[in-house]
Amino acid sequence: MDIEVESLQSPVDRIAQVDLARKVRLLSGRDFWATEDLPEAGVRGVRTADGPNGLRHQSGRHDHLAMFESDPATCFPPAVAVGSSWDPKLASRLGTALGWEAAVQGVDVVLGPGVNIKRSPLCGRNFEYYSEDPLLSGVLGAAFAKHVQAQGVGVSVKHFAANNQETNRQTISAEVDDRTLREIYLPAFERVVREAQPATVMAAYNKINGVFASQNHWLLTQVLRQEWGFDGVVLSDWNGIVDRVAALRAGLDLEMPGGSAGRDEEVLQAVRSGALDEAVVDRSAARVAGLDRWRADDLDRPGYVDVEAHHDLARDLAAQCAVLLRNEDATLPLSPGGRIAVIGHLAGEPRLQGGGSAHVNPYRIDVPLEEIRLLAQQRGSDVTYASGYLLDQPSPEHLLAEAIEAAAAADVAVVFAGLSERRESEGVDRVDLDLPRDQVEVIRAVAQVAPRTVVVLSNGGIVSLEGWHDEVQAVLETFVLGQGGGRAVAELLFGLRNPSGHLAESIPLRLADHASVLNFPGEQGHVRYGEGVFVGYRQFTTFDTPLRYPFGYGLSYTTFDTTALDVQVTGPDTAALSVQVRNSGDVAGQHVVQVYVSTVAGPVRRPVRELRAFTKIALQAGETRTVRLELPRRAFAYWDVDVDAWVVAPGTYAVQVCADAATVLTESVIELSGDVVAREVGLDSTVGDWLDHPHIGERTLSLLGFGQAVISAEHLLMVRSMTMRQFVTISGLDVPAERLAALSDTTR
Amino acid sequence: MDIEVESLQSPVDRIAQVDLARKVRLLSGRDFWATEDLPEAGVRGVRTADGPNGLRHQSGRHDHLAMFESDPATCFPPAVAVGSSWDPKLASRLGTALGWEAAVQGVDVVLGPGVNIKRSPLCGRNFEYYSEDPLLSGVLGAAFAKHVQAQGVGVSVKHFAANNQETNRQTISAEVDDRTLREIYLPAFERVVREAQPATVMAAYNKINGVFASQNHWLLTQVLRQEWGFDGVVLSDWNGIVDRVAALRAGLDLEMPGGSAGRDEEVLQAVRSGALDEAVVDRSAARVAGLDRWRADDLDRPGYVDVEAHHDLARDLAAQCAVLLRNEDATLPLSPGGRIAVIGHLAGEPRLQGGGSAHVNPYRIDVPLEEIRLLAQQRGSDVTYASGYLLDQPSPEHLLAEAIEAAAAADVAVVFAGLSERRESEGVDRVDLDLPRDQVEVIRAVAQVAPRTVVVLSNGGIVSLEGWHDEVQAVLETFVLGQGGGRAVAELLFGLRNPSGHLAESIPLRLADHASVLNFPGEQGHVRYGEGVFVGYRQFTTFDTPLRYPFGYGLSYTTFDTTALDVQVTGPDTAALSVQVRNSGDVAGQHVVQVYVSTVAGPVRRPVRELRAFTKIALQAGETRTVRLELPRRAFAYWDVDVDAWVVAPGTYAVQVCADAATVLTESVIELSGDVVAREVGLDSTVGDWLDHPHIGERTLSLLGFGQAVISAEHLLMVRSMTMRQFVTISGLDVPAERLAALSDTTR
Repeated sequence: MDIEVESLQSPVDRIAQVDLARKVRLLSGRDFWATEDLPEAGVRGVRTADGPNGLRHQSGRHDHLAMFESDPATCFPPAVAVGSSWDPKLASRLGTALGWEAAVQGVDVVLGPGVNIKRSPLCGRNFEYYSEDPLLSGVLGAAFAKHVQAQGVGVSVKHFAANNQETNRQTISAEVDDRTLREIYLPAFERVVREAQPATVMAAYNKINGVFASQNHWLLTQVLRQEWGFDGVVLSDWNGIVDRVAALRAGLDLEMPGGSAGRDEEVLQAVRSGALDEAVVDRSAARVAGLDRWRADDLDRPGYVDVEAHHDLARDLAAQCAVLLRNEDATLPLSPGGRIAVIGHLAGEPRLQGGGSAHVNPYRIDVPLEEIRLLAQQRGSDVTYASGYLLDQPSPEHLLAEAIEAAAAADVAVVFAGLSERRESEGVDRVDLDLPRDQVEVIRAVAQVAPRTVVVLSNGGIVSLEGWHDEVQAVLETFVLGQGGGRAVAELLFGLRNPSGHLAESIPLRLADHASVLNFPGEQGHVRYGEGVFVGYRQFTTFDTPLRYPFGYGLSYTTFDTTALDVQVTGPDTAALSVQVRNSGDVAGQHVVQVYVSTVAGPVRRPVRELRAFTKIALQAGETRTVRLELPRRAFAYWDVDVDAWVVAPGTYAVQVCADAATVLTESVIELSGDVVAREVGLDSTVGDWLDHPHIGERTLSLLGFGQAVISAEHLLMVRSMTMRQFVTISGLDVPAERLAALSDTTR
Repeated sequence: MDIEVESLQSPVDRIAQVDLARKVRLLSGRDFWATEDLPEAGVRGVRTADGPNGLRHQSGRHDHLAMFESDPATCFPPAVAVGSSWDPKLASRLGTALGWEAAVQGVDVVLGPGVNIKRSPLCGRNFEYYSEDPLLSGVLGAAFAKHVQAQGVGVSVKHFAANNQETNRQTISAEVDDRTLREIYLPAFERVVREAQPATVMAAYNKINGVFASQNHWLLTQVLRQEWGFDGVVLSDWNGIVDRVAALRAGLDLEMPGGSAGRDEEVLQAVRSGALDEAVVDRSAARVAGLDRWRADDLDRPGYVDVEAHHDLARDLAAQCAVLLRNEDATLPLSPGGRIAVIGHLAGEPRLQGGGSAHVNPYRIDVPLEEIRLLAQQRGSDVTYASGYLLDQPSPEHLLAEAIEAAAAADVAVVFAGLSERRESEGVDRVDLDLPRDQVEVIRAVAQVAPRTVVVLSNGGIVSLEGWHDEVQAVLETFVLGQGGGRAVAELLFGLRNPSGHLAESIPLRLADHASVLNFPGEQGHVRYGEGVFVGYRQFTTFDTPLRYPFGYGLSYTTFDTTALDVQVTGPDTAALSVQVRNSGDVAGQHVVQVYVSTVAGPVRRPVRELRAFTKIALQAGETRTVRLELPRRAFAYWDVDVDAWVVAPGTYAVQVCADAATVLTESVIELSGDVVAREVGLDSTVGDWLDHPHIGERTLSLLGFGQAVISAEHLLMVRSMTMRQFVTISGLDVPAERLAALSDTTR
């Protein structure tokens, strides 16, 4: 075991005089939510609480699965909605408000953001994650984390790492190769760590390639601390440690929750027996001690939350997250006057969020039906309502008939459909993407009789739109929007707000079209990430798989023109671009500039395109803006498993500004000189490796006499796969061994 | 290193007195094709030759890639065609004839059959393999091997194992999990070894999970010898060994070819230094010495091949391999009289086989155009010919015009299309499934002007039928049929023979629909078998992926009725079935009874159905036959990675008689008691593992009080994923630790 040299300064000094047993006590919680005090060393414990989209602070009976109530708090849009906003400014505002509420409630560390990748649409906790794309996840997570922490409250980035399912999450081993980890599952964590310096990182329950994340030295020390420079505390997910001593050795500092004296004894024994270096305990204890800089009671601020202001904020944010997927015949926004039939149980009892540890007990709840009635009244529209179906129980038959009756009498029907919180909760994965059958029946029946039908969807993870999509005129996918969602939806429907959300996740035609179905949720303790980097749109675009709506898709009540793309190469592996965007419609709106990079450079198969930069801008009708974005080295790099590093392959790269992952609006092709990676070659390397070598390729070619057509072009392709040793033997060519050896030597 | 105890009897005695250096010399070839003599020990070398579908015996200049000519031999249908025959009797007849030719030519060991699985349709050597299904591959390979060896000539089953691509085949590591190896990639080898006791097994070039097949002790000793009881010689693929000493240790006996004294020296050094146990050398030397029982010159037989009889046989076999895929309006067989336009370069210069080590220099070649002319003459039909296109070079424009002219003047056009041997050869994978564009152009143009169009395809691996399929009336997929294919095709077209081939491989709509595209041919030295067991039809059926033609598909000029399925359970994990088949049409024909098993039993995801038994029967028009087949234990088993063994899960199994993998004709559901697998559970096992345990599940349930609804049904699913340790801690339930420990103890 090797101990990394660090400069821990004062925290180390603070615990220098503390005896071993007391130091060990610091390394697990005092209780379910808080860490230990150590008054003699001036160390004060900190209090944690769940809550990436609102606090779940339990001052009463506590638990990990939201079986018991928590103190009221503002329920902001969950991560699935924030992901769909594509707006780091929105994540920042949410983080600021949440940080404030935490401080007021005396919470020092908020357990969020969750930046796991939506590998499969079935993951039961997808509502709590941002996207299937690591850049989008990382940018939003970093903005959130920075702004929570700017309020003096720490965050905990979770669940580190490769925690992409709930089924057997405590025991499953994610079998995932290094390139895929580096390109898909780690970058969002890396960005949050590098940009936001989070107070803590929460280790995931699961194993990665056979080793528990909580006991994974490569993950927690080599990558997180040594490569990314993380200097905060790594804590366990609740009750997430199997081998406490192994976890400490791997770089995990703090076991949560506390209360198990037996496990402290294990650590003490290990130190006494020499199995664990005391320096490991010192190092972790110093880190945990250092957490008290996040104590909320040190903050100088008023001790209350402006509940109304935060509710308004929750509404404002929610309105920018919903995604308008379909809007035939300009059905939306709804015209003034006329009769509106609002249909669906979810219009009266809205779905705000997901279940489990992220569940917030909201201050207030906007009910869509009420908000629609309020706005309709102002606009001279009549509103009727029929519930149509019930959630989580069989719907009596008369409900459908009532819905049909209401729809038939209306000018437009607005059907609220979606999934119940019971169907989407921490700890359980979904088994299909279907809306409940009775809801589909209502949608189809309504669409048959109503002149126009709008479907408003509420669901934490994506749902299938098949079986009814083409029969309705408009679809507004709201996901789950928090406590202000009801008002936000009403304002979007009536055009008081302009939809600006874009999908952060592909919507397939069939679940089976997702490559992850081959390996989800795994079996016998293992889940193979068999699709590699081809996650989400990376699969759909690369294999041209038909789908319903691509990643990045989203409509507006206005239109935008994208022109004048100019891409400048700014270095061997960097570029910058500018592009003009014009609001070419009649109303103000927000637009997301999505920049993808497309290349076939390098020895690995690249997805057809990958999101590499984006920004969301607001434009008045007719307004034009020039957007400038940087494309850093990483925008062009792949992870090379041979050299265990990011590599920018020399070659051609198309910089594409896209409407979504499937639709290129304009592109510009650049040439990057990139990195010269001179791999070592020897007799057991392939002839292809020799011929392609940047330094000796040419000399190999002439040495083997291929230039003189000793071997036919027909066989050259075959020969490239042979090892040099095999080729020399099989070909019978008189290739001097010492000349090959000399060439090989120059590659070492 | 552990040496297995074997009873080697006389071969051991024969080399007992031989000195080390001489024994080591036995362990590599004498020259390119032969093994060493050791006269003082009475050991005579044996001569090998390529040739699973005909000998490639080079009495002149030799090589491994068929760059130089070989002695003439009968070119029988290659494995792709034999696979499509679905007929072990056909493979047997081929083996018998080939064994005879080998013996006559003085070849002692034939390097075949190849029983690798067609994981990807792009594998450049698929023409040399039977099927995407392990049962079909194994049954055909075993029949072939048994009958070659019945002629006194040994075989070499190759390429062992997981050699499923040509790209970088000498260095690539196939990353494939144990269940997938056991269920997909190993069973065909296992069957050949167990049923045919092959003289030799050829180790593949590639690595499996990082270890070269030739140096893989698990593969070559543990699985092959200890589990399957193989007692023959493992030899290397040509020039396929990187570390000679490691290979010997792993269980590889014979390095081919010979001629490298330096490598013998490595072995001698290793023995002298103690790095290699001399017993390993003794054991392998004894095995190699034992090979001389296959010396062809010991056989008492006439020294000639009846070239005419073997040509007739080649024709007869070929006629039973071609697959009739489409036959609208009873276009085939061709009616007597009328005008036939034969179109396509391949009609005049047929494609017989694949390229590389399997390439045979045929005694004779039947040219389809000539055979069609002969038969047409007998039937009063006129034949015109236009080449339409050229192979491997740009087609002059006038060829297309001539083809159109010929087609327009005919009653029916027969277009020969396909791939050239240059495009399908050992050592190189294909990059797409497309027919050459000029051929597609010819097909489409001809179909537009000819009253009816028949397409005859010649290709080693499958080709896409998209872009023209719906425009033609009939498609006969012949793959590559060997030297008698020309006559066979003519007889099939005119109805002198009745097509009876069935696809041994799925034909997708798009290459991208194949799950293997996500990971083919790999990168940076690794190819991940990310689709696991979902290879070929196992994917298409399980994920309901639309495809052009399913595995098992094939038409006939007659029809068959399948009735009266009766399935009897014959044991805890076996069954037997009988089914009646009636030729309900007007002409005699052969029919393949395909029996699949479908289940969801067990802790692993099962393909929707898997081929578990089949037989091909000949029926006169109107004839009915009762077919009886056994379903052994393996027909119901999956490979369990927890217990590292085949397991038959207790549960329900549907036995389905199918027309093809997608079409169930009749089924019967049975219940099997199967195996009780009592896994060890402990505090770090999931609550689900405890509850599902066959011995302590009930007691766990009552101990945790779930029966008394202490925990809501809503949370139970979530709880199942927790470890028992976590559950006890988190739930706060008063579960006595000693009672849990006692329960856990009973599972050890």
